[in-house]
Amino acid sequence: MDEPKSEQREDSLGFERLIFFSDAVFAIAITLLVLEIRVPELAPQNLAELPERVFELWPKILSYVVSFLVIAAYWQSHHRMFRYIKRYDHRLMQLNILLLMFVAFIPFPTALLGEYGDLQFPAIFYAGILVVVGLLYIALWRHATIHHRLVSPDLDPKIIRYSTARSLSTVVIFLVSIPISFINPTIATLCWGLVFFTNQFLPRAMHITDDS
Amino acid sequence: MDEPKSEQREDSLGFERLIFFSDAVFAIAITLLVLEIRVPELAPQNLAELPERVFELWPKILSYVVSFLVIAAYWQSHHRMFRYIKRYDHRLMQLNILLLMFVAFIPFPTALLGEYGDLQFPAIFYAGILVVVGLLYIALWRHATIHHRLVSPDLDPKIIRYSTARSLSTVVIFLVSIPISFINPTIATLCWGLVFFTNQFLPRAMHITDDS
Amino acid sequence: MDEPKSEQREDSLGFERLIFFSDAVFAIAITLLVLEIRVPELAPQNLAELPERVFELWPKILSYVVSFLVIAAYWQSHHRMFRYIKRYDHRLMQLNILLLMFVAFIPFPTALLGEYGDLQFPAIFYAGILVVVGLLYIALWRHATIHHRLVSPDLDPKIIRYSTARSLSTVVIFLVSIPISFINPTIATLCWGLVFFTNQFLPRAMHITDDS
Amino acid sequence: MDEPKSEQREDSLGFERLIFFSDAVFAIAITLLVLEIRVPELAPQNLAELPERVFELWPKILSYVVSFLVIAAYWQSHHRMFRYIKRYDHRLMQLNILLLMFVAFIPFPTALLGEYGDLQFPAIFYAGILVVVGLLYIALWRHATIHHRLVSPDLDPKIIRYSTARSLSTVVIFLVSIPISFINPTIATLCWGLVFFTNQFLPRAMHITDDS
Repeated sequence: MDEPKSEQREDSLGFERLIFFSDAVFAIAITLLVLEIRVPELAPQNLAELPERVFELWPKILSYVVSFLVIAAYWQSHHRMFRYIKRYDHRLMQLNILLLMFVAFIPFPTALLGEYGDLQFPAIFYAGILVVVGLLYIALWRHATIHHRLVSPDLDPKIIRYSTARSLSTVVIFLVSIPISFINPTIATLCWGLVFFTNQFLPRAMHITDDS
Repeated sequence: MDEPKSEQREDSLGFERLIFFSDAVFAIAITLLVLEIRVPELAPQNLAELPERVFELWPKILSYVVSFLVIAAYWQSHHRMFRYIKRYDHRLMQLNILLLMFVAFIPFPTALLGEYGDLQFPAIFYAGILVVVGLLYIALWRHATIHHRLVSPDLDPKIIRYSTARSLSTVVIFLVSIPISFINPTIATLCWGLVFFTNQFLPRAMHITDDS
Repeated sequence: MDEPKSEQREDSLGFERLIFFSDAVFAIAITLLVLEIRVPELAPQNLAELPERVFELWPKILSYVVSFLVIAAYWQSHHRMFRYIKRYDHRLMQLNILLLMFVAFIPFPTALLGEYGDLQFPAIFYAGILVVVGLLYIALWRHATIHHRLVSPDLDPKIIRYSTARSLSTVVIFLVSIPISFINPTIATLCWGLVFFTNQFLPRAMHITDDS
Repeated sequence: MDEPKSEQREDSLGFERLIFFSDAVFAIAITLLVLEIRVPELAPQNLAELPERVFELWPKILSYVVSFLVIAAYWQSHHRMFRYIKRYDHRLMQLNILLLMFVAFIPFPTALLGEYGDLQFPAIFYAGILVVVGLLYIALWRHATIHHRLVSPDLDPKIIRYSTARSLSTVVIFLVSIPISFINPTIATLCWGLVFFTNQFLPRAMHITDDS
């Protein structure tokens, strides 16, 4: 609203802090995941069992890998969306904080999955949290792009639709994995891998050339 | 004081580090909160109890949510104040470090609240810490804005009063919750939710249009 | 590709976030290492044993030092490579995330080494993880520099070869330490110290003057 | 050395990463300190003991406060030195990493002090680590300022001496506290408080006006 130039610079620092704070929360959540993998305790006479005891940790290592890739994929979506968002307002801030609250929570369902990965409950719980994260992304992106509120007026509608589609596909995959978990929790977990396939396939299907 | 231009740039890097360091402390404190929510340990014959055991964790999850929102609200106040603060001096640095010392401490009263949320002591302890945080915000803001010491000379006094009022309202709410905790600790905890209502209501009451 | 100037600025913010996020993951992984060193628990009548009990922690302190220096060396390589990388694309992002996934995992093999440093398995496990990290660095650097894809067209081929050689030397050292661990795990661990010698020697051997 | 302008920008990003990485390590180390303060575990019949059990944690809370202020003071010194350092080289990088290795280690001696604060050993151990940190600061600052190697050629020698004196005063205080700990460990710990007095007194004694 006709702010003097020095005010705009201020705002740019404020915007950078918002992004920076988000990056830090993503980075910490993703790095805390490893703390769930604990060194096995062995009595002195059983030291020879160490290799097999470490290999028995594979469900925890698998859930580390899955959650690392999931949080990284969400960070990438955040990164992608904020490449186009130019300004921020009160509601964007709130939606972003809500989103971070769920992202920072992910280490808990990850630990649950690592401990009880063969049960159905952790798979549903994990999928449920990630459905919420996906919906928050859609809400944030919609708030920012409707009537080009917080994005450049000449932002290509194709790019707007692409980011929505990407978040939506994640929501659908995690939602669909919930009924599947009633049949077999492991198959449900494997379904989540589809996220990475759709992330490869969607840009081509929607003719997005620059998908970084 | 007529410093050469290259000195000003240096100072700007110094100022950014101060903000950056604060953001990092906020982000880490907020993300460590989840570590208090531990995966329940179940004997192999009791695996079916997992869902109820996870739902029994709700006091910890609630205290995660409350503290996440409280720290995020304080981060937003910090963000808001430092949009207007243009320079820093020795005392601002010291007040900011003191403030961060209390913010970084919040995971401990949060854990106490999550473990013994139905007792009175954790509610008083938590409220007391947050009263101190609120008072430090007021001190920092007053130091920065009195005679426009560290802010732009043309900063609207309305904005100065607004940030003070916002911190003051937090102090009042947490203070008032202390006598209420003598009646019922849960009601005291619920009172804290008023922080979010006043944060919605204050900008309108004080005719602040841009409350991001 | 003839993008308007405002798009290039956006891209520069995106590139900074990528670097920033990586720095944060490195910094958190490196700082979490200390959490493995726990304060010894002593019964009141044994308080006089504290000094020796702390000195008994030396294998954990040694593995802290080794892993701190190893992660710092990898951070330096990342720092060095990204001084020359000017742009990013989808694949660079993916390779970088994969690389961070292994870096953020290092606290676990470090803890294993600190607990069971006299056994062979932790040495092999640790070396194996670091071989993978080194290979990912080579892949990332090759992706960025081949046909000068993401670097300046006039980047000196000598500098390209130097960074490859540096990562390759790390891979070779950790690989060679694996058969040595069959003879003696401690000698294998000491071999890793060669990384620091080659890092001193390589720049001179390859006539790189500015090795910061 | 007459580098083209685009190379200088690269270098500036590299320099910012070095500072950023350091800030992140300081911020994480300072925020991890709180994890040592654990919620007391009470049997259901002893819930009324909660307040006294929390007050019994005061040695841990005290060591949290001391270490927070100590790490913050070191961060401030780092901040202060890097306001004047304009360039970096290989050795600055190495000295900085060594320094961070000791800073990131501080949570361990802090925990030791919180657990066994009335014994002599933790006081000596803590003081010893902080003497090393102080010496590394002096080495780093000397490397940067000798012949104005990495600072502006017109940097006032008074400012160079001031930063050295400040680090030296910390080293002296922690060194002197070691023989004092043979008399009484608590007095030794209280001595450390002198750091904050000398930090107030030194700028005036050395006629430094801008001590931010």
